[in-house]
Amino acid sequence: MRTVYLNGQFVPESEAKLSIFDEGSMYGSTVFEMLRSYNQQHWKMDEHLDRLYWGLKVLRIPEPMPKQDMADLCNEVTLKNCGEFQSDDEFRLMINVSRGPLGIYRDACPQKGPTLCVSCFPLKWTVAGMGALYDEGLNAVVVNQRHTDCLPNVKHRSRMPFILANQQAAQMAGLRNWALLLDQEGFVAEGTGANVFMVLNDQLYTPDPNHCLKGISRDHVLGLAQELDLYADVGRYNYYELIHSDEAFFTGTPFGALPITSIDGIPLGDGQPGSIYKKIMAAWDKEVRVNHREQIQDWDAQRHEPVGSSPYVSKN
Amino acid sequence: MRTVYLNGQFVPESEAKLSIFDEGSMYGSTVFEMLRSYNQQHWKMDEHLDRLYWGLKVLRIPEPMPKQDMADLCNEVTLKNCGEFQSDDEFRLMINVSRGPLGIYRDACPQKGPTLCVSCFPLKWTVAGMGALYDEGLNAVVVNQRHTDCLPNVKHRSRMPFILANQQAAQMAGLRNWALLLDQEGFVAEGTGANVFMVLNDQLYTPDPNHCLKGISRDHVLGLAQELDLYADVGRYNYYELIHSDEAFFTGTPFGALPITSIDGIPLGDGQPGSIYKKIMAAWDKEVRVNHREQIQDWDAQRHEPVGSSPYVSKN
Amino acid sequence: MRTVYLNGQFVPESEAKLSIFDEGSMYGSTVFEMLRSYNQQHWKMDEHLDRLYWGLKVLRIPEPMPKQDMADLCNEVTLKNCGEFQSDDEFRLMINVSRGPLGIYRDACPQKGPTLCVSCFPLKWTVAGMGALYDEGLNAVVVNQRHTDCLPNVKHRSRMPFILANQQAAQMAGLRNWALLLDQEGFVAEGTGANVFMVLNDQLYTPDPNHCLKGISRDHVLGLAQELDLYADVGRYNYYELIHSDEAFFTGTPFGALPITSIDGIPLGDGQPGSIYKKIMAAWDKEVRVNHREQIQDWDAQRHEPVGSSPYVSKN
Amino acid sequence: MRTVYLNGQFVPESEAKLSIFDEGSMYGSTVFEMLRSYNQQHWKMDEHLDRLYWGLKVLRIPEPMPKQDMADLCNEVTLKNCGEFQSDDEFRLMINVSRGPLGIYRDACPQKGPTLCVSCFPLKWTVAGMGALYDEGLNAVVVNQRHTDCLPNVKHRSRMPFILANQQAAQMAGLRNWALLLDQEGFVAEGTGANVFMVLNDQLYTPDPNHCLKGISRDHVLGLAQELDLYADVGRYNYYELIHSDEAFFTGTPFGALPITSIDGIPLGDGQPGSIYKKIMAAWDKEVRVNHREQIQDWDAQRHEPVGSSPYVSKN
Amino acid sequence: MRTVYLNGQFVPESEAKLSIFDEGSMYGSTVFEMLRSYNQQHWKMDEHLDRLYWGLKVLRIPEPMPKQDMADLCNEVTLKNCGEFQSDDEFRLMINVSRGPLGIYRDACPQKGPTLCVSCFPLKWTVAGMGALYDEGLNAVVVNQRHTDCLPNVKHRSRMPFILANQQAAQMAGLRNWALLLDQEGFVAEGTGANVFMVLNDQLYTPDPNHCLKGISRDHVLGLAQELDLYADVGRYNYYELIHSDEAFFTGTPFGALPITSIDGIPLGDGQPGSIYKKIMAAWDKEVRVNHREQIQDWDAQRHEPVGSSPYVSKN
Amino acid sequence: MRTVYLNGQFVPESEAKLSIFDEGSMYGSTVFEMLRSYNQQHWKMDEHLDRLYWGLKVLRIPEPMPKQDMADLCNEVTLKNCGEFQSDDEFRLMINVSRGPLGIYRDACPQKGPTLCVSCFPLKWTVAGMGALYDEGLNAVVVNQRHTDCLPNVKHRSRMPFILANQQAAQMAGLRNWALLLDQEGFVAEGTGANVFMVLNDQLYTPDPNHCLKGISRDHVLGLAQELDLYADVGRYNYYELIHSDEAFFTGTPFGALPITSIDGIPLGDGQPGSIYKKIMAAWDKEVRVNHREQIQDWDAQRHEPVGSSPYVSKN
Repeated sequence: MRTVYLNGQFVPESEAKLSIFDEGSMYGSTVFEMLRSYNQQHWKMDEHLDRLYWGLKVLRIPEPMPKQDMADLCNEVTLKNCGEFQSDDEFRLMINVSRGPLGIYRDACPQKGPTLCVSCFPLKWTVAGMGALYDEGLNAVVVNQRHTDCLPNVKHRSRMPFILANQQAAQMAGLRNWALLLDQEGFVAEGTGANVFMVLNDQLYTPDPNHCLKGISRDHVLGLAQELDLYADVGRYNYYELIHSDEAFFTGTPFGALPITSIDGIPLGDGQPGSIYKKIMAAWDKEVRVNHREQIQDWDAQRHEPVGSSPYVSKN
Repeated sequence: MRTVYLNGQFVPESEAKLSIFDEGSMYGSTVFEMLRSYNQQHWKMDEHLDRLYWGLKVLRIPEPMPKQDMADLCNEVTLKNCGEFQSDDEFRLMINVSRGPLGIYRDACPQKGPTLCVSCFPLKWTVAGMGALYDEGLNAVVVNQRHTDCLPNVKHRSRMPFILANQQAAQMAGLRNWALLLDQEGFVAEGTGANVFMVLNDQLYTPDPNHCLKGISRDHVLGLAQELDLYADVGRYNYYELIHSDEAFFTGTPFGALPITSIDGIPLGDGQPGSIYKKIMAAWDKEVRVNHREQIQDWDAQRHEPVGSSPYVSKN
Repeated sequence: MRTVYLNGQFVPESEAKLSIFDEGSMYGSTVFEMLRSYNQQHWKMDEHLDRLYWGLKVLRIPEPMPKQDMADLCNEVTLKNCGEFQSDDEFRLMINVSRGPLGIYRDACPQKGPTLCVSCFPLKWTVAGMGALYDEGLNAVVVNQRHTDCLPNVKHRSRMPFILANQQAAQMAGLRNWALLLDQEGFVAEGTGANVFMVLNDQLYTPDPNHCLKGISRDHVLGLAQELDLYADVGRYNYYELIHSDEAFFTGTPFGALPITSIDGIPLGDGQPGSIYKKIMAAWDKEVRVNHREQIQDWDAQRHEPVGSSPYVSKN
Repeated sequence: MRTVYLNGQFVPESEAKLSIFDEGSMYGSTVFEMLRSYNQQHWKMDEHLDRLYWGLKVLRIPEPMPKQDMADLCNEVTLKNCGEFQSDDEFRLMINVSRGPLGIYRDACPQKGPTLCVSCFPLKWTVAGMGALYDEGLNAVVVNQRHTDCLPNVKHRSRMPFILANQQAAQMAGLRNWALLLDQEGFVAEGTGANVFMVLNDQLYTPDPNHCLKGISRDHVLGLAQELDLYADVGRYNYYELIHSDEAFFTGTPFGALPITSIDGIPLGDGQPGSIYKKIMAAWDKEVRVNHREQIQDWDAQRHEPVGSSPYVSKN
Repeated sequence: MRTVYLNGQFVPESEAKLSIFDEGSMYGSTVFEMLRSYNQQHWKMDEHLDRLYWGLKVLRIPEPMPKQDMADLCNEVTLKNCGEFQSDDEFRLMINVSRGPLGIYRDACPQKGPTLCVSCFPLKWTVAGMGALYDEGLNAVVVNQRHTDCLPNVKHRSRMPFILANQQAAQMAGLRNWALLLDQEGFVAEGTGANVFMVLNDQLYTPDPNHCLKGISRDHVLGLAQELDLYADVGRYNYYELIHSDEAFFTGTPFGALPITSIDGIPLGDGQPGSIYKKIMAAWDKEVRVNHREQIQDWDAQRHEPVGSSPYVSKN
Repeated sequence: MRTVYLNGQFVPESEAKLSIFDEGSMYGSTVFEMLRSYNQQHWKMDEHLDRLYWGLKVLRIPEPMPKQDMADLCNEVTLKNCGEFQSDDEFRLMINVSRGPLGIYRDACPQKGPTLCVSCFPLKWTVAGMGALYDEGLNAVVVNQRHTDCLPNVKHRSRMPFILANQQAAQMAGLRNWALLLDQEGFVAEGTGANVFMVLNDQLYTPDPNHCLKGISRDHVLGLAQELDLYADVGRYNYYELIHSDEAFFTGTPFGALPITSIDGIPLGDGQPGSIYKKIMAAWDKEVRVNHREQIQDWDAQRHEPVGSSPYVSKN
């Protein structure tokens, strides 16, 4: 049975809960990170923790422990749970930090100081059903809900625009539809838990981080592009430039990158995953010694129930 | 010991918790209401439940039970807890509804259907230390953080702009500072859990609900104004019109209305609670047979610890 | 064979064409009106011609003839064609006026002065397949394409946002989907050739004409509301207020009003055409002595081919 | 007599017309291109056709024929007409593609599939009277009408903002006034059928294509700049940076580039065509083996009638 | 010789000067009012002083004296100078208040406390040449410079947008051109020292004071409208509604109201001063027992030099 | 006694005044520059005069003399006054140019042509009390007042947003608070007379000049960065990127650069002046052969009175 670190204790996963009097529950003000492993080794833990601690600073949440101790704790949580994983599993580590119960509720919830929760569960949950998408590609649904986040660079839990966007995308038939949000002036921003890249004439284009999260997979793709001698431009792009792309793809920690083969039903290029996308994924697979596509397709082949009983999948 | 309704069961208040895998925890997508009693009778329960159920509809969260059953449940929760209250207490009822655990986490959290939590605790927690404000008035701090909520009319838990606004206001010395947010075009929007009214030449002015919550206390004040033959205008007002007011006040369910006697340190009128404010509160007190000011000042007189150990008070 | 007035001549309908060198073809700068008859009597011709002539003035297009002569011409065109209509037909009159060929193309197209074209064809073309919608209601698809018209109050032919909106709506399955556009700040604007009304607590709400056409059917509904003692508010409403409505409907000259029974798939009220809608249509039917619903359903019953071979229906 | 290709047939130029029932007439949704020749050889036909076919894709208009066949057709149209041109003439080729008649009008206009029209006429029509501007320069009139195009990167016929802008500029005395539009946030966007460049300290500056057409002449100037070792910046520039320029010029296919020597009457630099402008034009002239200025001045010298009988000249 | 009150002293008009070290000179932060007399009696002095004192409060400038003393001072200044006026003159009173010299310049300019200057000169200076406009009407030039004032309701001296607007309008030929500014979203705001009214179907329309000064003459017209049973709407109107008006006029203290007979050269109505305008001016004339038009035309008839040697006339 | 050049004459500093009828007093339309010396040699006079003359051109103010004569005049003013300075003083030269008295006031103020005023006073006035800030650093207060200047690139006197921003910042306790303004879309713009730089990972970031003054010290820092092989990015940065910086600093001619060690009370990095800041100041000190910090701390040590009797310090 998996166990979760919660405010100094280890509790069963089913007991990993947050008080209704916690500021995180009350205001959606939890800062969080979600990591994955490759070959059961955590990937880019430093980058994730750096972003987490910056978010704490912006929100003036006291650090629950020094950053290095947090890394140790993450490893401890993983170690405690690794017996619960199958040999072909990968880890999905989730860290939530909130300011703790609001002072006015001290009688109901006497905890002092911030709330910290670290859990570790199989990555295959998050990516269930995504295996086919590496071959078929996604249809990006550009929803009318704009990206109105007041703090787009911090990974936090006030994610209402994402829920609304996902609901709009879920109106389309099929399981290949992922929402894509425009920013408030109508430029391409990001998916709901995924950054977006466009490719035109073998060059990469991705929105600047004024209106989207500076995703760690996004940064990784920018690094791979450099290694592969692909020029990458960071800026603002409109909806019709997006349609104009030869290729496009979403990036996100759990899946690496997934091809977008149409936008609102208009095929990009020949409607197939593009060659630049494939080149980047090949380099990524090689670097982490995991074939993303095969790994997820294998997991999908093992599943018995259908995916998508809830239409609102968490993608990161 | 107070008890809380949580998904079909009654649990101790300290066990009133939400799974970290619940969409409410993950996305700040919980819809909620907070009621108060007068003389231990719930006030405007229908209005609160109507707004709750509309929020569920907008967010496409299945109704956990028919609205009438919810009213019955609220009363049941209150009844079960009323022995824990002192005779001069009032009830604060909190209803949270979220869509429930995300489908991908069914192994960790097998609950199906929405999450419903109804709790009831003393109102005096929420209003601790506010007693003096009826006499001294508040200083409204107009923060640089704009009101960016994509769903201002639904009472939901993605309240990041409010936390950031509260933090900015807390930079000012003293306990009389409450944050006031402008909307994205720079017009007065609302406080962090409180609507705002201005008074000029004996007329009331309050922002239209395109950029603020349609608060139930706000609606009540509009009704009182009508009874008192006070003209009330609903529109958009800028920062300098706010300063131009003779009086201003915040409204919110727990405290009714509190006078704003200065804006960013500039006194309104003579710097004292205004006569229209007093006229409205007098009518309100009479109608509910509770003197807001005295009730809270009595509670404050009984408290032993200082208020404000956490600067981020939840105001509704 | 129907005949069309074109610059002083009558030509067969199939010859009703505009030079590629005309400013109207080149710039989408044609001003137009489309009328309908009830019992073969033109409806509100003065209002339509007033709007047409105002558009000419705004665009500084010389008037091709005095307004009264234009009315006479419209009647003449109708008279010349009325033998081509069946006894249960209604007339659809279309007037297009553009500035004429650009001066630089005088060698290719020597015409001087404005281009005027008046044609008259069966209304049933425009409303084909709409009969069922009076009973089933429409699903309004709120598209991501915003309403960017620089001249929303003039009925002109630079209607690119409408085409893009229609294409987005056409991605949804079924024939009941009509596009609804938000304005550039995210408030409800209008359909693509149809105004929108919301109903809440028996009051009507419709966007102010700063961001939509001041439709003649819209004005008519406002007039009927007054007669029926229904309060009507003209203002700005957001997406979530739209969802919050008890009822909603589109208005447009060819069909009068059609009920919107869901928004992006979220049912309004009980998902049926609403009672206020029905009351308005009953008054309208009575006034014009035509039952809109029955008339169009009769026409639909006579048709042999399926509707919708082109997804981009012109609605006005 | 010149002949025009129209939907599979060749018709006289005066018969080159579009049905009033065509979506292009109805919605301004025609996609178009206009080419020119140098020494009677078409220039950059591939670039023009690429842009045309991209526009068709964005608007989901079926391709009327493969791109290579379109190139062949363009040449065929030119060949058929070249006998009508004088030896010192250049060709102006115009391609219009629209979706064709709306489905509801099939009885009036039975054509199926898209409408394609290719015509070829003397370039000197378009540039009549521009010869003097190479020496005198233009006065750019920055109009109050903002550039509100929802699809600025597609060359389409919903060009209302351009007509309104031209009308405002035409209020100024003289024939040297060309309109220049700001985008919706007040930055310099483009002329009405012409891109704009600024020069400061021997560096070029031109608006990014988020708010203007990515003109083919604009791209050509960026290429020439590279060859001439001139740094070119693509970004957003405000009105007062424009005035601050040492030089400025408009680019457009028919005329190459024309100097702007004043903005709203404020002279740029010494009020004469600038040296960078001249350097670029010299390189361009050399490359295409045509002296733009002399060619157009020669044509102007041959004309008998005055230019400008219509103030609204089509510039591309 | 006229004399001016300046910080406790009376100085000759030519010595009425502000130190270059005064915050008013340094930051354009002077608050001011300009009054006029009718039959040598000051008009609406209370309203002007109320606005002045409100501006001082917004800018946190200490009051130089109680409001009643200021009224007395204004009368004293008038009395001291009235011998310098002709019998048919009216007074123009100007009050400037600034915070005084910046503290860092105390060595150069040792004055402490605010700077107050009250002067009184002939109104005919301000309205020179306006007589003919009552008959001919103005052409409102809608400039591209938007109204960007951060404090539109306070009459202050940071009036850069007005200077830029006046300069753009001055590009047009003739003396009948007055600038009209749009607000930042493109709606009609105000002239440069004048409010604007539109008339359509005998109803008045004027921009709401969120984006323009709440002019005292504007308020007066709203009052006259009420007396004359004319409905007046206060809201936001776009450029094309302005053109759509039957009539329009500017209001300002020195001239009352002046008719706008064209907008960017497009005539309103029949291009003559409108009947509602005339009705309002007749009521105004009667109330103040001065015929505005005749008074100014008389003064113009007496002038020897031409008007307009500086194109940048101050209108209030 | 210091003397000031004013319109062709030298007058005592206390007589350096501007007529209340001057357009500069009336409209805040004065263009100005403020220089400083290092070792009593003026710094970057050419750059300052270039910006001044460009401002005159934009505002269409006639040049009062050729630019070279202006340089000579500046030197003459300095020379005439240098006997009044102590040996350790530096010069602060101020140039104001306005269009002169408005034409309508010619009777009161017969001056023709522009108003020019050049004065020279001790730099220590401007920087009084800043010495400690080199060690302690500033707290940047991000005010709610946005930067609404219509002409951000011209140094002019319509500086109302700066006064309002300073007043908001002055609400905070202590003397270390300087206001920082966001632009109208919420990105970091500039201080009130100071540009802002951020440092992250040893790279510099500073807002692009579309929304701030192109400060001469800002340009100098960009040049120093190049010499020091520091990469500098010019773009748009949001509030939370600002907080994310390792370091930040303001630049301004009188003080060079001053470290920002906290933003709204949140410490940057370790809350101390940063190493990149120090590296830049070291290079600057060396280049100008003046230690900024020591020079100002020396002056502060000599002062007898406390600083800050007026909270609104002019910083440039």
